Amino acid sequence: MEPKLIAPGDVKRVGVVGGGVIGIGWVLHYLRMGFDVTAYDPMPEARVRIQSMVDDTWPLMVDLGLRPGASRDRLTIVSTLSDAVCNADVVQEAVPEVPEMKTKVFAEMDKFAPSHAVLLTSTSGISMTVIQSESEHPERMVVGHPFNPPYLVPLVEILGGARTAPAAVEWAREFYSLNEKDPIVLEREVPAFIASRLQEAMWREALHMIAEGEATVEQIDISVRQGPGLRWAITGPMMNFHLAGGPGGMAHVLDHFGPTLTEPWTRLVAPELTDELRQRVIDGCDREAAGRSVADLVAERDRCLVAIMRARDAIQIPNAGKAPGSASGVPA
Amino acid sequence: MEPKLIAPGDVKRVGVVGGGVIGIGWVLHYLRMGFDVTAYDPMPEARVRIQSMVDDTWPLMVDLGLRPGASRDRLTIVSTLSDAVCNADVVQEAVPEVPEMKTKVFAEMDKFAPSHAVLLTSTSGISMTVIQSESEHPERMVVGHPFNPPYLVPLVEILGGARTAPAAVEWAREFYSLNEKDPIVLEREVPAFIASRLQEAMWREALHMIAEGEATVEQIDISVRQGPGLRWAITGPMMNFHLAGGPGGMAHVLDHFGPTLTEPWTRLVAPELTDELRQRVIDGCDREAAGRSVADLVAERDRCLVAIMRARDAIQIPNAGKAPGSASGVPA
Repeated sequence: MEPKLIAPGDVKRVGVVGGGVIGIGWVLHYLRMGFDVTAYDPMPEARVRIQSMVDDTWPLMVDLGLRPGASRDRLTIVSTLSDAVCNADVVQEAVPEVPEMKTKVFAEMDKFAPSHAVLLTSTSGISMTVIQSESEHPERMVVGHPFNPPYLVPLVEILGGARTAPAAVEWAREFYSLNEKDPIVLEREVPAFIASRLQEAMWREALHMIAEGEATVEQIDISVRQGPGLRWAITGPMMNFHLAGGPGGMAHVLDHFGPTLTEPWTRLVAPELTDELRQRVIDGCDREAAGRSVADLVAERDRCLVAIMRARDAIQIPNAGKAPGSASGVPA
Repeated sequence: MEPKLIAPGDVKRVGVVGGGVIGIGWVLHYLRMGFDVTAYDPMPEARVRIQSMVDDTWPLMVDLGLRPGASRDRLTIVSTLSDAVCNADVVQEAVPEVPEMKTKVFAEMDKFAPSHAVLLTSTSGISMTVIQSESEHPERMVVGHPFNPPYLVPLVEILGGARTAPAAVEWAREFYSLNEKDPIVLEREVPAFIASRLQEAMWREALHMIAEGEATVEQIDISVRQGPGLRWAITGPMMNFHLAGGPGGMAHVLDHFGPTLTEPWTRLVAPELTDELRQRVIDGCDREAAGRSVADLVAERDRCLVAIMRARDAIQIPNAGKAPGSASGVPA
């Protein structure tokens, strides 16, 4: 069934269901975007936690720039789920990652929310097909998965379930784009979506290394934040290799380093580098490069590297980087 | 045998062997640090390539800040390996990643370099035990693995081979530390060291997703650079989770999300979360936190996030982030 939705630019009031770190993060973001926000969490102590985190973080939101009319006074913390959603133009759910709980909460939100409201879940991996399974209007339910902290990190992963209307997915993409997010729309349901899978691969390799005494926690953090992590914040992993390939870019990297895919680098088994995969990766890098030469992209990356290291180091109290000598002692 | 080394602070002349992207990167770094640099590459066309990349990148080095006396005029491009190393106080090798070639180049450098000079290899994964196997003075040979571009990224991974003197490893650590690098000393030889293993785990997961049509190249890059990549540049992966755990930090994360390690998130098989591994991870985060609460660290991370996004976005021409809608088309 086609849902009757309002235009994403006409949203005035956002309901947030769930008052943990992610829920409160959304509250802050939507307040900064100039919406009325109603927030609900069933735990009695949540009211104080929500208000105090909003108060503590608000100066950063001001620094970041408020939309016209934005005010933390436009937050109402309510005592029932129905109060949180009954006047909302869009709802962002952020309750614990328990499939049965999400499914139940969505069925209930569905009863009370206006028919024009899209219902978004912050789930980091539960299938929307499951979440919408007990609701009467599943067509308006969409995954909008943020990254911590949602009031700062731009990425939102979007996808529907088996019964979600494509129009609702497109609505979500437009809504987030209008509100300073950088959404990506997944073509299919894959466990944990995209970014968390990448993050999880690195996390597991790190845990293996710590378990085997190959690296300390500190060495892993230094190695990422002073090494490839700097580049990932600028180019992402694929363009990073494109830039490492010299004038030949990604094609050179795949042809030159492809064989090392079979070496025991990480515990993750490598995919077969078929001609099709090779071409797909090269084409993607070419699209991202959008006509810019590797040399141009390298010059841009270098300026960014200098700028972000300066910006970061002006603020951050070095910790892991402080005593590199001491980091060599792998704990017994 | 104990090598007779000069103090790392007394180095005046650096030899660089290999004139590819990494070798030239080292040339730029050592010139900026105020050394005389002799560079050698056997390919006839290398001379022009080295000089033009040094000239092109020098303005960035000036912007970054030169050590007293630093000048690009202090580069001498020489025509033989012996000329590159015979007067060097330390040598940084960066020839192609072919074990036989590195082994041969080190045996030759060993013949011509002064006995007080430490010989460093930029290898990203070949064992120093192999590289030093045909040399007469293996005790002074150490891995000093940089990350591209070596004139900007601070990380250097250091380790010796079976016949390297511990004093030479410590010398390398001190030398890099004195010259604006952030070295980590590995306790044991592990294929590809630390950062490349983490990078490779993510790269392989990304290739799997692209091969399966689960994500496009652009989606992978957006998801990292607008998502977790931003955090990794600030905290590294371990502290990132420590900060996501609320007041309970990493202990809460492991106890709460530990069970999801067995879920099909990424194709990398998870390690068993033993009590020992759990404790090792928690202890490492506590050491890095150095008494700061999670709330303090979160506030610091948030300020860094805002600063680095601003710094980056002021420079970077968005590419992957430009048309999020179009990124939803997974290529057939």
